[in-house]
Amino acid sequence: MSSAPDNAVAEPPVQGVARVAVTRHAGRSTQHQADRVIDEQPVALVYNGVSHVVMMATPLDLEDFAIGFSLSEGLLMSLDEVRDVEVQAGPLGVSVQLQVSPRAFDRFKDRRRQLAGRTGCGLCGIDSLEAFHDSLPAPTTPVQVRTPWSTEAMGRAMRALPPLQALQAQTGGCHAAAWATQAGGIALVREDVGRHNALDKLIGALARRGELTPDGLALVSSRASHEMVSKCVRAGIGTMAAISAPTALAIQLAERSGLSLFGFCRGDSAVEYA
Amino acid sequence: MSSAPDNAVAEPPVQGVARVAVTRHAGRSTQHQADRVIDEQPVALVYNGVSHVVMMATPLDLEDFAIGFSLSEGLLMSLDEVRDVEVQAGPLGVSVQLQVSPRAFDRFKDRRRQLAGRTGCGLCGIDSLEAFHDSLPAPTTPVQVRTPWSTEAMGRAMRALPPLQALQAQTGGCHAAAWATQAGGIALVREDVGRHNALDKLIGALARRGELTPDGLALVSSRASHEMVSKCVRAGIGTMAAISAPTALAIQLAERSGLSLFGFCRGDSAVEYA
Repeated sequence: MSSAPDNAVAEPPVQGVARVAVTRHAGRSTQHQADRVIDEQPVALVYNGVSHVVMMATPLDLEDFAIGFSLSEGLLMSLDEVRDVEVQAGPLGVSVQLQVSPRAFDRFKDRRRQLAGRTGCGLCGIDSLEAFHDSLPAPTTPVQVRTPWSTEAMGRAMRALPPLQALQAQTGGCHAAAWATQAGGIALVREDVGRHNALDKLIGALARRGELTPDGLALVSSRASHEMVSKCVRAGIGTMAAISAPTALAIQLAERSGLSLFGFCRGDSAVEYA
Repeated sequence: MSSAPDNAVAEPPVQGVARVAVTRHAGRSTQHQADRVIDEQPVALVYNGVSHVVMMATPLDLEDFAIGFSLSEGLLMSLDEVRDVEVQAGPLGVSVQLQVSPRAFDRFKDRRRQLAGRTGCGLCGIDSLEAFHDSLPAPTTPVQVRTPWSTEAMGRAMRALPPLQALQAQTGGCHAAAWATQAGGIALVREDVGRHNALDKLIGALARRGELTPDGLALVSSRASHEMVSKCVRAGIGTMAAISAPTALAIQLAERSGLSLFGFCRGDSAVEYA
């Protein structure tokens, strides 16, 4: 299956957006129209020629995605372990080819051996409750945030985000993760059909630019689940703010990791959970 | 880690909801309050004593969840293959113990053998683009829907849903999947922190009651991704309506499977994608 639906309408393509023919119903009236929907494709991450994982993602900023996912899932310890990253589109989907250091690749092979024989359907190949608890980031020394974020500064950043969500404006089906600094508002935005992917793209982009600092704020246009908190903790981010609710496990993980976690950030109000 | 955050506040427990102490910021004022957040716990699905998969889910209606997931992911062919289902809470999380027929269990063992040696991190244990395409439901004879849903009837069902979202009202962080019939409005609602889980709980509950018919409508309080469409197709559901946007792949899959797919269902308006 290619990414474009069979009822796709010809138009200069925008990366990450597909055009489709739809029937719009409003009360008793119906209209046949062209519409834009968010693109979602299988994306394989391939390390030194070995396909490791397939994620559904919006095919945009995939180098950032591959790097960010590798770092935030603890597959790579630092950007120094990546020699090269290249996106290849093929008939079955997109693959991101990463060349990683021999040391990093040895870790991968160990991980494959540990997982051999598991069915691994579901949560990142985790098939037992023991494996789940082992997968959480270990309690660490809390990240040192020099100046805690005020809700006013957080509110300014949150208000600055919607006009920067280009794919969301076109499709209405897209999450965003953004990086805000106390000096300059929103520094970077990444979008994806999946909220985890948007955050991974942001983490990857920041790592590649050398701009991942504990003092920045990761803003997410979604809820805060434990996976989102995990990813921020592994990336060394000090503060995370979500537009919607956190989960109980996300709060618990933020507390034991020293991550400042805010939810329901709307206007100048926010709820501080950890 | 148990489910309750360290700052949990004592109160008669409501299943699926955790109480936490928070700091509420509004402009320059701050208030220390008790708040409710949605519970999210690792839930292991164990078939004939073998742990197969761990999902993050809200610990409510877990028998429905286990049955629905098994059916909608093609692990079980029908409810007849299930001899028993039992939820067990333990110190590491919750497990759902399913006793399945020897024939179904043989299929499981085959699946484990096929997956042996794969790393299986990410999309349901799928580590290559070929495996992804193999995992999609095969094109089938379209489900026979006797009376197509009108947008008026769909709008009535959509309006009836919010007052029935009990966990969402308490926590603001919860998805719902509901079953509507043309005669009687909303027949059943299931909620979960994850939208796929809410749909699996709905499918499981319907299967257990013998109420899965092509003529019903699956309503989801979220976007429509390809996994959501896949699950409806495998369950034999004829029509799906989402409050938010579908993805391009979801539309394509709905078209080739004969599922009627509506998005942006709000008030009396809806967009028909397939």
